[in-house]
Amino acid sequence: MSELLAYIESNGDRFVEELKAFLRIPSISADSGYNAETRRAAEYVADEARRIGLEHVQIIDTPGHPVVYADWLHAEGSPTVLIYGHYDVQPPDPLDLWTSPPFEPTVRGDSIYARGSIDDKGQVHMHLKSIEAWMKTAGRLPVNVKIIIEGEEEVGSPNLPPFLAAHRDLLACDAVMISDTTMYDYEMPSVTYGLRGLAYFELHVVGPDRDLHSGMFGGAVANPINALCDLIAKMKDENGRVQLPGFYDDVVDVSPEERAELARLPYDVEDFKKLLTIPETVGEAGYTDLERLWARPTLDVCGIWGGYQGEGAKTVLPSKAGAKVSMRLVAHQDYRTVGDQLRAFVAANMPPGCTVDVVELHGGPPALTPTDSVPVRAALAALEQAFGIKPFLIRSGGSIPIVADFDAQLGAPVVLMGFGLPDQNAHSPDEKMNLPNYHRGIKSAALFLEQMSRAGQ
Amino acid sequence: MSELLAYIESNGDRFVEELKAFLRIPSISADSGYNAETRRAAEYVADEARRIGLEHVQIIDTPGHPVVYADWLHAEGSPTVLIYGHYDVQPPDPLDLWTSPPFEPTVRGDSIYARGSIDDKGQVHMHLKSIEAWMKTAGRLPVNVKIIIEGEEEVGSPNLPPFLAAHRDLLACDAVMISDTTMYDYEMPSVTYGLRGLAYFELHVVGPDRDLHSGMFGGAVANPINALCDLIAKMKDENGRVQLPGFYDDVVDVSPEERAELARLPYDVEDFKKLLTIPETVGEAGYTDLERLWARPTLDVCGIWGGYQGEGAKTVLPSKAGAKVSMRLVAHQDYRTVGDQLRAFVAANMPPGCTVDVVELHGGPPALTPTDSVPVRAALAALEQAFGIKPFLIRSGGSIPIVADFDAQLGAPVVLMGFGLPDQNAHSPDEKMNLPNYHRGIKSAALFLEQMSRAGQ
Repeated sequence: MSELLAYIESNGDRFVEELKAFLRIPSISADSGYNAETRRAAEYVADEARRIGLEHVQIIDTPGHPVVYADWLHAEGSPTVLIYGHYDVQPPDPLDLWTSPPFEPTVRGDSIYARGSIDDKGQVHMHLKSIEAWMKTAGRLPVNVKIIIEGEEEVGSPNLPPFLAAHRDLLACDAVMISDTTMYDYEMPSVTYGLRGLAYFELHVVGPDRDLHSGMFGGAVANPINALCDLIAKMKDENGRVQLPGFYDDVVDVSPEERAELARLPYDVEDFKKLLTIPETVGEAGYTDLERLWARPTLDVCGIWGGYQGEGAKTVLPSKAGAKVSMRLVAHQDYRTVGDQLRAFVAANMPPGCTVDVVELHGGPPALTPTDSVPVRAALAALEQAFGIKPFLIRSGGSIPIVADFDAQLGAPVVLMGFGLPDQNAHSPDEKMNLPNYHRGIKSAALFLEQMSRAGQ
Repeated sequence: MSELLAYIESNGDRFVEELKAFLRIPSISADSGYNAETRRAAEYVADEARRIGLEHVQIIDTPGHPVVYADWLHAEGSPTVLIYGHYDVQPPDPLDLWTSPPFEPTVRGDSIYARGSIDDKGQVHMHLKSIEAWMKTAGRLPVNVKIIIEGEEEVGSPNLPPFLAAHRDLLACDAVMISDTTMYDYEMPSVTYGLRGLAYFELHVVGPDRDLHSGMFGGAVANPINALCDLIAKMKDENGRVQLPGFYDDVVDVSPEERAELARLPYDVEDFKKLLTIPETVGEAGYTDLERLWARPTLDVCGIWGGYQGEGAKTVLPSKAGAKVSMRLVAHQDYRTVGDQLRAFVAANMPPGCTVDVVELHGGPPALTPTDSVPVRAALAALEQAFGIKPFLIRSGGSIPIVADFDAQLGAPVVLMGFGLPDQNAHSPDEKMNLPNYHRGIKSAALFLEQMSRAGQ
């Protein structure tokens, strides 16, 4: 082990130089004008995979950008780890807000600045370098490893779910490792074990068949805006509980152990209020803010419209109103079931004098990996060794739909061991990666494989 | 009396020809390109006033279009009636939807088609011709009469309230007669004794200081759209009662007599539902639809906005939301008091985690003339004589702010004796006036003066 870690330490500067070559490729998946560059990033990953000793290296075409696959499967009797990441990046606009050009990686202070530095090329590179370190020092890996590095994460991974479904045998594994998330904060290495899902709908309320004079008709004709507001208001009670029938039936509640673990995290409500300029936080009664953000489902209206939105006092009783209603889901809610619940709620609360249509716009499953599962324990142990700090178990309130796809298609627990930090400007100008974390990330990745091999014995 | 009515009958065709000259003037007050024409209409009224024997004829300038004043004040000991009307018209667009050009008055069937035919030149003309008939047959009027015919009604009468305030002595009177409303239906002559007022506000709800990611922040940060919907929903209870504190304190409730009178009016809910393509009517519990439309206050949201209104599923927790909230008021609600009530309601129901601003956009007082007042009784008697039909007492759900201004500035009861019909396209292409009603309107106007003279004795 000491040889492995010594190799990572002594080659650190070279690793950064190699990473720069990867970061120089403008693999902007959203912009088809960069398709050749995006492919060049896939080729870079494939070449690198070959160079560090992975086998069966393939650039597998999809209807969009290709997926790079490689493996090393000679650890007979040991578990198989599938490492997922992405080589594509967000568009760099607005360019004038970058201190140094987005595709000219530049070290300033403790950080390397470039588009993709933290999201996700830097983190992909950590895993590649950890494999190199194993191969160069031990001539082998402690477990079987497969990697798939895709090129469409920044455009919503449209081709990944069918890819997973079509390659279940090739991708069969015991655990999925993803490094594409953030730590809770500086010097707080974290394993993310839960993500929220999403159920997103549009409501269309229709009252009279045309806009009416609010004086001539107001009082006896249903107003679709008032009706929509009534309907939305009824969707949550005064305790912030969502009122769709059965909404909480499939929710895994926060256990006392999880509650204690989350309470360990520093959270200053005053800082949070200041950050957003809000007078207070709100939410479901009986839960802390972090529990509300990570472990409880929500119902938020993302948009609303109806009637006259211009200047002044137009006295109209409008014909129509609409809203976008988004629910963040937690395990084991199913967005299709939630859709049925919303339709049932609307039918049971149909505002008099109106009709309401429910249109499904988007759905994605939540994810929850048991914190006592092998890969989560292995990641925690690896982080503690690499950082010398007891790591934290965290969740994220956002959604990464592919995480649930991995779980569903491959039946393997997914562990999110991310090395980003909250202020690293992923998707923004001056994206950066903390270099000490990069080096500790390589060690963490290497030690994770070691931990997985022990767990498998 | 028979001579008076005979004169009106035998001169009917000439009256229509004279009216056409008035209708040919494109006195579009909203369009300053027509200012010369608008002034020409004022001059037409002044010339006509002189011709029929009115005195003190003046075209009084205002910051906008002028007001025509004239009087005849030789009925010593008799009441003074102030007749109000307007010589300006709505813009005629869209021109291609007119069967005959808007300023080429054309008789087709029982109607005369032209912009301003019913709103309001035709009805102003009825009063002028009734005065002519009195002067030609009796050489005098049975009461004192003052007329003010303004040129800005179609742009909201911005200069009329200060005009009234500045000319209280000149305009002093015992009753105000306005013919600018409609009858309930064909062959249903009507006196309108009540109008609703208006209190119109904008609500601005602010949550976090920028749009947030609904996954990262949803659950612990107040959503201003949800908060706005809650606030709006709370403004009415399940019985359709407005929940602002003290909202009904000043409301004159529908008396049993009024209820019986309104129940006399034909109203078919099935026709009403079909007209608007609505599944049912709604409204305040305990009141009929007509009562809800005319005699009860309302709260309608005329517009709402917030967050993402485009296509698809943007997962945003928005920073802001807003709505336009309009309340129709009934006597004796004061729109300023209602503003205080709304602010008190918002303060008492301030959604947690947000701030709410209330912006006043518009206010106008309701009007209610006692149905046993002299001018209402006189108008009912005059209509019954002229039409040979027992007339109806009705209200309107809309607002004519100047009606309350007359009441407030001159302290005289206002009676609305209108001869429009629901299908006469006021403000729309093919505006028309029913000619039999025009002739009966002249008789009604003449008989109203006679009735007023009796009431004064």
